[in-house]
Amino acid sequence: MKAAAIAQAIRRGQRRAIDVTEEALADIAARDGRFNAFTEVTAARARAEALAVDQTIAAGRDPGPLAGVPYAVKNLFDLEGIATLAGSKIERDAKPAARDGFLVRKMAAAGAVCTGALNMDEYAYGFTTENAHEGACRNPHDVTRIAGGSSGGSAAAVAAGLVPITLGSDTNGSIRVPSSLCGIFGLKPTYGRLSRAGSYPFVASLDHLGPFAGDLTDLALAYDVLQGFDPEDPAQTRQPLEPVTPRLSAGIEGLRFAVADGHFARNGHAEAFAAVEAIARVAGATRRLVVPDAARGRAAAFLITMAEGGNLHMADLRTRAQDFDPGTRDRFLAGAMLPAHWITQAQRLRADYRASVLKLFAETDILIAPATPFAATPIGQANIELEGELVPIRPNLGIFTQPISCIGLPVLAVPLADPTVAGTPNGLPIGVQLIAAPWREDVLFRAAAALERAGVVSAPPVRA
Amino acid sequence: MKAAAIAQAIRRGQRRAIDVTEEALADIAARDGRFNAFTEVTAARARAEALAVDQTIAAGRDPGPLAGVPYAVKNLFDLEGIATLAGSKIERDAKPAARDGFLVRKMAAAGAVCTGALNMDEYAYGFTTENAHEGACRNPHDVTRIAGGSSGGSAAAVAAGLVPITLGSDTNGSIRVPSSLCGIFGLKPTYGRLSRAGSYPFVASLDHLGPFAGDLTDLALAYDVLQGFDPEDPAQTRQPLEPVTPRLSAGIEGLRFAVADGHFARNGHAEAFAAVEAIARVAGATRRLVVPDAARGRAAAFLITMAEGGNLHMADLRTRAQDFDPGTRDRFLAGAMLPAHWITQAQRLRADYRASVLKLFAETDILIAPATPFAATPIGQANIELEGELVPIRPNLGIFTQPISCIGLPVLAVPLADPTVAGTPNGLPIGVQLIAAPWREDVLFRAAAALERAGVVSAPPVRA
Repeated sequence: MKAAAIAQAIRRGQRRAIDVTEEALADIAARDGRFNAFTEVTAARARAEALAVDQTIAAGRDPGPLAGVPYAVKNLFDLEGIATLAGSKIERDAKPAARDGFLVRKMAAAGAVCTGALNMDEYAYGFTTENAHEGACRNPHDVTRIAGGSSGGSAAAVAAGLVPITLGSDTNGSIRVPSSLCGIFGLKPTYGRLSRAGSYPFVASLDHLGPFAGDLTDLALAYDVLQGFDPEDPAQTRQPLEPVTPRLSAGIEGLRFAVADGHFARNGHAEAFAAVEAIARVAGATRRLVVPDAARGRAAAFLITMAEGGNLHMADLRTRAQDFDPGTRDRFLAGAMLPAHWITQAQRLRADYRASVLKLFAETDILIAPATPFAATPIGQANIELEGELVPIRPNLGIFTQPISCIGLPVLAVPLADPTVAGTPNGLPIGVQLIAAPWREDVLFRAAAALERAGVVSAPPVRA
Repeated sequence: MKAAAIAQAIRRGQRRAIDVTEEALADIAARDGRFNAFTEVTAARARAEALAVDQTIAAGRDPGPLAGVPYAVKNLFDLEGIATLAGSKIERDAKPAARDGFLVRKMAAAGAVCTGALNMDEYAYGFTTENAHEGACRNPHDVTRIAGGSSGGSAAAVAAGLVPITLGSDTNGSIRVPSSLCGIFGLKPTYGRLSRAGSYPFVASLDHLGPFAGDLTDLALAYDVLQGFDPEDPAQTRQPLEPVTPRLSAGIEGLRFAVADGHFARNGHAEAFAAVEAIARVAGATRRLVVPDAARGRAAAFLITMAEGGNLHMADLRTRAQDFDPGTRDRFLAGAMLPAHWITQAQRLRADYRASVLKLFAETDILIAPATPFAATPIGQANIELEGELVPIRPNLGIFTQPISCIGLPVLAVPLADPTVAGTPNGLPIGVQLIAAPWREDVLFRAAAALERAGVVSAPPVRA
């Protein structure tokens, strides 16, 4: 069920949007119990949006490029009339959102049909979506394993085929980690590219929103719909609208690829590096470029995240700490109490680190790096062996994503078409990061489309 | 001794730059013992620069708009071959600067002659220039009183007539406070307007550099010379060059003035508000606009300053704390240990505060506010009565400047021509802040020039 095909059939009058929507709602009702991707199904809203699309078509007007396409959003996006949970129990007491978030309005304007809100780590602070209040989200490729996080529901819903497109957020890797573990495409755009207005914040200087899809064309369609300046997000700068859909057929002639070395060539299991090599080979990436200071950049992102998160939730931490997920509470509290010296040093280091990484793009257009250090781990497993040490899984799933997002570079997470060539356990999916210079999402889509045509990149089928 | 007149005489061949320089050096040698404004006199450099100007003229080439004008810089500006002290004892061990700072290079390119480096509070952290290592800088209007700080030497050197132009820095008020107490003009430009490359930093997001002069035309000449994009300062954005010298004769027709109310109408002695009223009357400012949350903005600036300053000096604080000025050491240490929650909250508040203050400029072009809460106090006096409480002088001298610089607005500090109309003790000088929207220095110079022509604004003569 691809978005492009659905929209085309509906736009041509071959199918009605309400029929597609009823099928999607029935499918979610029948199958999501296995995945726990949805925390709320917005059936009434979906039907109303679908009927409006059908009426628009009946009236002879353009229903939009995503006409009748079902989608769903991480439950930190405002949906009018529903409390924005952001994965928490505390926000169940919040007032329902008065208005859809900016990106939800963009999807609606394009004719897409919102079917619900999706599971996530509490307040987006985690990489596993083992949510204490909603239960763990389960990976469609193996429901005993995690889907990744914090946008676990967004990735699982797409991988399970419940909806072709979802939206999520990425502060330290929360789009790219679940994309990798669920074997789908996920875009973390340049910092400031897509408006965050009307979404529950986490860390102002690190938060990004972006789309997921099982198909690159669908991802491009969604991203093109989501672009646009919004003065309500202070991170927004006016950028020219640059649709990527027309770039999908451009080919990769003239694009320079390099494999990220240093930090990105350690700190993972063999499968992560084998996935990178498989894609690098097809891309013709013969160079390896060390990303300087990546581990220190990641450390800075950790500290800034803890401190800003702790500050954001201080009032609740003071009065109702017991209502937090144990997986987030202690880190927020510790973050609030870090010495200011550390935070200042982290900000200073981050600025220097950004400047040195940007220089790499004089020598390459795309850096290829692992997305996750390993494939999906069993739900409930706390630790894993990495570089000869037993380390906690939850923070270390972001070991390759965090050093990139903390300096705002655009990243397209692409799934390895055949994970068995990388030797993942049980053929579980694994993804790779394609990283470009700021504002060069066009280059990422061009490259991914060429890799898809070459057969090395695509969402592996769910065998369950 | 005005810069414009000196440059004109030299450019026309009526005087030689070397003669002007020798006179200035002799004057500094004879009289600075009274003021302690200079920490280093760069006589050899000054003579070399003056001779080069004379040679340029002899060769028939343009020697620049500040040809042969003596100036001096706060000792946090890099001067090639001299250790950049930044008011400290610790930096006496530093390597001599390999190159002049950006603004010093701009002055040199305009033909100005650098006569030396000037006294300041250690690491720019103070408002009194009672420097433990160099001794207190003394106010030319009453040498038993402070010159203000942290750019005290810069203001005193101009007020004493030792040089017509100096450069200083302003993180929380360090240009405007000494300008007010010494009765001269001082410009704190928009944050990001003038490059800080090649100067000793304090707080990256608050540091500004700017000029002082005893005469508004001289200040405009200096500011026009100093403008220009510099990629070496990360705060720089490309702005069109907008010389203000041509704007001095434009008049104030069409300019809207308002008196800053709320925080700016309390927290000072009667003389501060009388000075504002005297200038507001001539400017035709009948409106009063409350600057919302100014006290909270100032609190945020305090915390950010402490934390970033503490971080910057952490290595020395750990290993040689005894070498710091007692006036700065404890605040740096306390700042480094603030909880991260406070710093994050301060940054959050600062962003909100900035947004709300910017809205005021829809209703006015210039806000008139006091520059200091009182005139110069005696050297060594620690406390003063303010709003019925005995409070420390050092931090409270910035009570009106700090809430403006922390959001980067351009401010021109102008001296009241006749301080006796404001009732200052012993007729001591006092200044007023003219505040504009970001990048509108042009409006400030237009307004100040008109107020100068009306006779209400000018540097009062030193009677000593």
